[in-house]
Amino acid sequence: MAAFDATAAANSGVKKLQPYQAGKPMDELQRELGLSHVVKLASNENPLGLSEKVRTALQAELSNLIRYPDANGFYLKSKLAELHRVEPQQITLGNGSNDVLEILARTFVSAEEEVIFSQHAFVVYPLVTQAIGAKGVAVPAKDYGHDLEAMAAAVTDKTKMIFVANPNNPTGTFLTTEQIKDFLDKVPPHVIVVLDEAYYEYVPEPERAPSIDWLQHYPNLVVSRTFSKAYGLAGLRAGYAVSSTEIADLMNRIRQPFNVNALSLKAAEVVLDDHDYLQQAVQVNQQGMKQLVEFCQQQGYDYIPSYGNFLTIEFGPKAMDIYEKLLHEGIIVRPVGGYQLPNHLRVSIGLKEENQAFIDAMLKIG
Amino acid sequence: MAAFDATAAANSGVKKLQPYQAGKPMDELQRELGLSHVVKLASNENPLGLSEKVRTALQAELSNLIRYPDANGFYLKSKLAELHRVEPQQITLGNGSNDVLEILARTFVSAEEEVIFSQHAFVVYPLVTQAIGAKGVAVPAKDYGHDLEAMAAAVTDKTKMIFVANPNNPTGTFLTTEQIKDFLDKVPPHVIVVLDEAYYEYVPEPERAPSIDWLQHYPNLVVSRTFSKAYGLAGLRAGYAVSSTEIADLMNRIRQPFNVNALSLKAAEVVLDDHDYLQQAVQVNQQGMKQLVEFCQQQGYDYIPSYGNFLTIEFGPKAMDIYEKLLHEGIIVRPVGGYQLPNHLRVSIGLKEENQAFIDAMLKIG
Repeated sequence: MAAFDATAAANSGVKKLQPYQAGKPMDELQRELGLSHVVKLASNENPLGLSEKVRTALQAELSNLIRYPDANGFYLKSKLAELHRVEPQQITLGNGSNDVLEILARTFVSAEEEVIFSQHAFVVYPLVTQAIGAKGVAVPAKDYGHDLEAMAAAVTDKTKMIFVANPNNPTGTFLTTEQIKDFLDKVPPHVIVVLDEAYYEYVPEPERAPSIDWLQHYPNLVVSRTFSKAYGLAGLRAGYAVSSTEIADLMNRIRQPFNVNALSLKAAEVVLDDHDYLQQAVQVNQQGMKQLVEFCQQQGYDYIPSYGNFLTIEFGPKAMDIYEKLLHEGIIVRPVGGYQLPNHLRVSIGLKEENQAFIDAMLKIG
Repeated sequence: MAAFDATAAANSGVKKLQPYQAGKPMDELQRELGLSHVVKLASNENPLGLSEKVRTALQAELSNLIRYPDANGFYLKSKLAELHRVEPQQITLGNGSNDVLEILARTFVSAEEEVIFSQHAFVVYPLVTQAIGAKGVAVPAKDYGHDLEAMAAAVTDKTKMIFVANPNNPTGTFLTTEQIKDFLDKVPPHVIVVLDEAYYEYVPEPERAPSIDWLQHYPNLVVSRTFSKAYGLAGLRAGYAVSSTEIADLMNRIRQPFNVNALSLKAAEVVLDDHDYLQQAVQVNQQGMKQLVEFCQQQGYDYIPSYGNFLTIEFGPKAMDIYEKLLHEGIIVRPVGGYQLPNHLRVSIGLKEENQAFIDAMLKIG
């Protein structure tokens, strides 16, 4: 009997997949280097801590964990629909927005089709494309950001989906309302445009695109948001897409029925009403951004101006050396060599004292 | 400009998908019928309530929810590896075992291939098959259970995966160690056998198959388990597969990096050590099963003898009528017409008083 060869048996797209590299967990660094205190500025997490209203709500919810979550997310969808002035049927909930992006690709893209995204854009776009064996088309960036004209020009008959991150991770670059609107007008109607706004809440209000309102005019548009960043729920996993009801209906067919756990549903519902928390999270981010930008300017480091909750700084060929030295000082930041930015490190904005710990470590390393 | 047609744009497998029908949520019934007290015996949930050790651990963990989960599930995998005497590299964690089953299909099955499962078997098998556009082959059941001889005979050159549920949901039927072993010996090595043991802990110890030990001899075998049933964590979502390291490596490439949330990782880790909880959960189930079986025998209802935490009872053509009448009495059970069992209802085993509420309602309905 022939032996079973798992790799030969796997789908061709899967074999070529490189697993996602997560930020180094704090306890892993503590285990490895025997450090007692570690500052993690590696995963664009919200340094403010959990919303107290969420904490109270979750404690009350623990007893229900023996029950399956509501497969339809009735209460959360109702609240999101009200907030965004859409119908609940236009919303697809995800186990983080990673899940939403994967569901989108699996719903619409076949192995024979192409998916466009920008160089230096979020790695989950090529990953979900590769997983289904479709062709990913990475369009060279302009000033580290999306070159929307080049991306529109890259559309072929085989293009099925375009991912646009705004702001983009890991560069923090931002596209204006006009730029995106022009782009949507250019993209042919057989192509689905996914506007990933994971960092939307950090953008100053006057500059935010009215993206969800655009859904009425662009039936091929999908807007994706997350609770992992400004809402501070990364550990729970909750994200969502807003789209036409037709797109949402298709996405909800392929979605795992219990993809969003019971505590995520509750926490997301509660934090949407905690306006003070969101305001404070954004404020802490603005202050920390100023702190890191001033450090860069004082020390003569180039950085990519950022609309997110992180700053990507250029250190030249010594970037990985600095990363390692920072680890030994108990500071975790994020290498972005996998994003074709081998000379940069991405530093998430922490609390004032966490940012200062990074600055102090940098000055010590010299 | 042509209008965008979302349905035309979707992958062919997705268009034919019928969404999973979850058990009716308790608060939905309360909203609809204005009932204050509802007993849910519809989703094979653990009636014992959350493990107190888990509750304490989760409360301590809430503060960390602003952080992403550990993408590698280091602690949970270490504990599972120890429990099952395997390497951590043989384990793939899932957002419930639904996620594990979907990851398996997406890793190994292409649109041109076939997947075999039994009639009356768990609906997620045909769903994950359909989602990738592959051909599902449902083999007629024997006495409501898997006909393993017929399933082995259904294997063709195109067969890539066979799902075997033991015990099976929604019938509760059980395959002996010898039956499964014979089957594994018959299946050609190019076919992956997924042994879904979601209800494993309810099976009396002497009758349990040493399925994970078999991995050494059958490299095409994958064993799937869940924390949603006897461990009482359905709301949090946690399940896992144990396989060869090669299969696990491939599955982990396609797995979303943060598919298992931080509280699930912690809760699963803690509940594995709460032996008293598991023992009590199994005991409550045995007592409740006796209570329901006696009711059936006294009232002359046929039922399918069950190794799970539910009993599927035959009510004839009036089954849906009884289901509706039970709803008005505040009792939710599960119709199984979607499983080609239109004359049956599946009743999950609850606490003694919950089972009694079902029995009282049945006697009232008459």
